[in-house]
Amino acid sequence: MSDNTLKRAVILSSGGLDSTTVIALAQAQGYECHTLSFDYGQRHRSELIAAARVSEKMSVKAHKVVALDLRTIGGSALTDSAISVPEQASDGIPVTYVPARNTVFLSIALGWAEVLGANSIFIGVNAVDYSGYPDCRPEYLEAYAKMAALATKAGVEGCPVTIEAPLLNMSKAEIIRVGVDLGVDYSLTLSCYQATEEGEACGKCDSCRLRRAGFENAGIADPTRYV
Amino acid sequence: MSDNTLKRAVILSSGGLDSTTVIALAQAQGYECHTLSFDYGQRHRSELIAAARVSEKMSVKAHKVVALDLRTIGGSALTDSAISVPEQASDGIPVTYVPARNTVFLSIALGWAEVLGANSIFIGVNAVDYSGYPDCRPEYLEAYAKMAALATKAGVEGCPVTIEAPLLNMSKAEIIRVGVDLGVDYSLTLSCYQATEEGEACGKCDSCRLRRAGFENAGIADPTRYV
Repeated sequence: MSDNTLKRAVILSSGGLDSTTVIALAQAQGYECHTLSFDYGQRHRSELIAAARVSEKMSVKAHKVVALDLRTIGGSALTDSAISVPEQASDGIPVTYVPARNTVFLSIALGWAEVLGANSIFIGVNAVDYSGYPDCRPEYLEAYAKMAALATKAGVEGCPVTIEAPLLNMSKAEIIRVGVDLGVDYSLTLSCYQATEEGEACGKCDSCRLRRAGFENAGIADPTRYV
Repeated sequence: MSDNTLKRAVILSSGGLDSTTVIALAQAQGYECHTLSFDYGQRHRSELIAAARVSEKMSVKAHKVVALDLRTIGGSALTDSAISVPEQASDGIPVTYVPARNTVFLSIALGWAEVLGANSIFIGVNAVDYSGYPDCRPEYLEAYAKMAALATKAGVEGCPVTIEAPLLNMSKAEIIRVGVDLGVDYSLTLSCYQATEEGEACGKCDSCRLRRAGFENAGIADPTRYV
């Protein structure tokens, strides 16, 4: 494949079920994949180990971890140890919401995409299961793409990077079925908000409950290691 | 002043001439000011010392420094020691451009604004002197504000944070005259891309040249300490 036809993508990767499925989808579409993770002071540090494991096993072109200390601004159960991770669903925007997190992560991905000359940024957001997060809605992603086209050299030169969210309208069970069809090994992934250092999931947080129900609804054995 | 009428702002502060003038302008408009700086691997580290000094002397409500290692993605003379800072003007987008930097900084400011319940984010971008940077244009800032309104709790609830860029259409000389009228002590500030550890400016980089010409054009003595 010549450089002219090479498609290159930056993919936000948390080592979880959704973003790992996104890597498989981008690879199936012929993208050279560059995965990006963040060491942002999250309490579920084992996700960084999972992200590195996923990138290695899926043979991506490069995986980078950007250090960004979001504890400085606080405001979320995921970065502020004074706020507990809830073990039951709540109405409205959950305390696990990290203020402007997708905007921050997409923006650093945008910078790396510019350095790489990438065509697209992939993000595993989902409007079905995470309807409480404002930055998981299609109108948000459209506005982000418009802003990104004006923010960068590539945009100014007429080739703006695209923002791809292939899971946006899929249920968790659909995501899992698509991933299994593409050969994703979900035992590599970790979704829990408060996993142990050994990578065992709590089975109780929002993220665990959605994941477990997804496997049940998909009729596929759940490979997750629970505490 | 009651909480209902308190106006609160997050202000991006580099310790330089522009962002320091912005703090003075926001204070003059009655904002409670929270300043935000970034330790992003920049070679001009003394800007962080200048930013802390400015925030202290101007008695802002709080100053935070977020650690964010942009060296991981590279691509700029300001974060990549393999690329030299040029000492003469060039056409097009300069190598001191940090990919998506304003987008990244605004996004972290957006997260902090959400935590604080701030009404506005102030940024000292300028379309006159920095026309080579795509993320200093008014159309970019408008698109950013639209995206931000869709990204956050506050936006969903009908009170989006505003993006204020009061220097956008001012020349460097005008900025300096406005600041001097508001009592800004520019000897506190540092604009150089490659200042010494003691905070002395090189006098040769783009940023130094624009600053020096600004004082000359304003007819105001330049308080900068040069090497």
